Amino acid sequence: MKKYVFGVDVGGTTIKMGFFTVEGELLEKWEIPTRRENNSENVLPDIAAAIDNKLAEKGIAKEEVSGVGFGVPGPVTKEGVIQMNANLGWRNKHVAKELGELTGLPCMGGNDVKTAGLGEMWKGGAAEYDNAVFITLGTGVAAAIIVEGKVILGAMGAAGEIGHIKVEMEETVACGCGGVGCAEQYASATGIVKMANKKLAECDTPSVLRDAEVTSKAVFDAYKAGDALATEVVEKFGHYLGYSLAATAAVVDPEAFIVGGGVSKAGDALIEVIQKYYKQYVWPGCREKKFVLAKLGNDAGIYGAASYVL
Amino acid sequence: MKKYVFGVDVGGTTIKMGFFTVEGELLEKWEIPTRRENNSENVLPDIAAAIDNKLAEKGIAKEEVSGVGFGVPGPVTKEGVIQMNANLGWRNKHVAKELGELTGLPCMGGNDVKTAGLGEMWKGGAAEYDNAVFITLGTGVAAAIIVEGKVILGAMGAAGEIGHIKVEMEETVACGCGGVGCAEQYASATGIVKMANKKLAECDTPSVLRDAEVTSKAVFDAYKAGDALATEVVEKFGHYLGYSLAATAAVVDPEAFIVGGGVSKAGDALIEVIQKYYKQYVWPGCREKKFVLAKLGNDAGIYGAASYVL
Repeated sequence: MKKYVFGVDVGGTTIKMGFFTVEGELLEKWEIPTRRENNSENVLPDIAAAIDNKLAEKGIAKEEVSGVGFGVPGPVTKEGVIQMNANLGWRNKHVAKELGELTGLPCMGGNDVKTAGLGEMWKGGAAEYDNAVFITLGTGVAAAIIVEGKVILGAMGAAGEIGHIKVEMEETVACGCGGVGCAEQYASATGIVKMANKKLAECDTPSVLRDAEVTSKAVFDAYKAGDALATEVVEKFGHYLGYSLAATAAVVDPEAFIVGGGVSKAGDALIEVIQKYYKQYVWPGCREKKFVLAKLGNDAGIYGAASYVL
Repeated sequence: MKKYVFGVDVGGTTIKMGFFTVEGELLEKWEIPTRRENNSENVLPDIAAAIDNKLAEKGIAKEEVSGVGFGVPGPVTKEGVIQMNANLGWRNKHVAKELGELTGLPCMGGNDVKTAGLGEMWKGGAAEYDNAVFITLGTGVAAAIIVEGKVILGAMGAAGEIGHIKVEMEETVACGCGGVGCAEQYASATGIVKMANKKLAECDTPSVLRDAEVTSKAVFDAYKAGDALATEVVEKFGHYLGYSLAATAAVVDPEAFIVGGGVSKAGDALIEVIQKYYKQYVWPGCREKKFVLAKLGNDAGIYGAASYVL
């Protein structure tokens, strides 16, 4: 009788581990470091060891475990193969198969953003929608496009790369992807910091940001306190993200946008500024969409990972 | 034993009728006028009569017919209900149910563009792709978004409305949808004519278009012959459409774009100019997509309609 399942969210710095019942109750979560040396050769063995240790600690037999789900950065094929991941140094790595051999358990998974979207769909902010777009605003901007209850992959696993919609024709600096003027260059945590630093350097407007470490949180806090310079930055952020989401709506017509990732900690003020610009740019047929905050925070990935197995 | 199926494509001027074998061989096609008076009350009875007449003419019993598929303009729910169609004057019309009662045959259908996309997927230019975008360039611009072999509907049946992605922030004239600066205002047959007339009025550049009726065909013919003014218009068309398709690719990552509708008669020259601008605006991860012409022309709708039943 299978009673348990593991959900594993592999990040560039830490690996988040979740131990669930097959009903989806999170019994325990913890983190292990991502050892990236030698093309991250220890990552999968470390995960397998963490699973073995947890089962030993709890006195649970492997036969009681249904399987292991995982989320990893970058495009992942349906079969669980990573073609290329610069961050981890993986190439054509069959994660599902290798982790299966190491753990002796059925393993399956996918891209981390899509996995987090699955988590929000299963137990979080997207649970009540069949058609939704889960956006994560962190170092980058990416989305899980949910169509009729499924996260779509696209031809090459690149569906939902809405952070790479070109939104600024005047830009001269390249995005990490090689494009120029991508939404991610302005609408991510990194983008917010860059825009704020640029503005601070360009003008003399007084701002609380002049005496602080400039982070996306600091910018949103200053914005909420009415700081004029921070307001300009946040409005620009809203313009670029609102525009990208308006284009996204014209393509897939979701019921709702679920906003997650580190930047989403800014809360309702964030939702309001996104929605303001979204309504300005979207066509009338898609104007009335719901905008909600993601609910699972950093746990969306482990929930989504576990859901692959169930 | 079911041997036959009807495919019906309801347009604003004519209704295209197709009579197929269940294997998808088109045995006969013909047209009847769309009688729009009194909120198009005769349209469904006219279709039913055309079906009865065809069966009588051929000496085929209704028992041999598997059903009737239809495509109609505007958003259609999964259940075959049209919520609102200004052109036909229909509101909350349960087309599938009404046509079923009139014909005594199982009826099902959907939006005309999505139906044409199904047709191209079944027997045309999209047949070899699981993930594709079928674009129709006619009076307007719309798409059928094909994900894993299915045309997606979206929350309100409005997926694929890529003609309403805002592409021109400087525009002051409104689109038919109520938005301003939609791709459709430039990238449709109507848009091409408007752009050409505007340019002809604004400047003195010699052009063969000054002595011709300005149609999208005339503009593309002049473009192919090297006419400078037509070239400016076609490049603008390519810019706006290429941009919309680049945004679409970032959202759904298709394998290919299938280009249909009246404007697609311009052929390879059209594909080349779309692709030129697409590559300029799309992010590197989606740069290498196929662009092909639709194959079924005006028959895409009847093929797609028939495929609903099969």
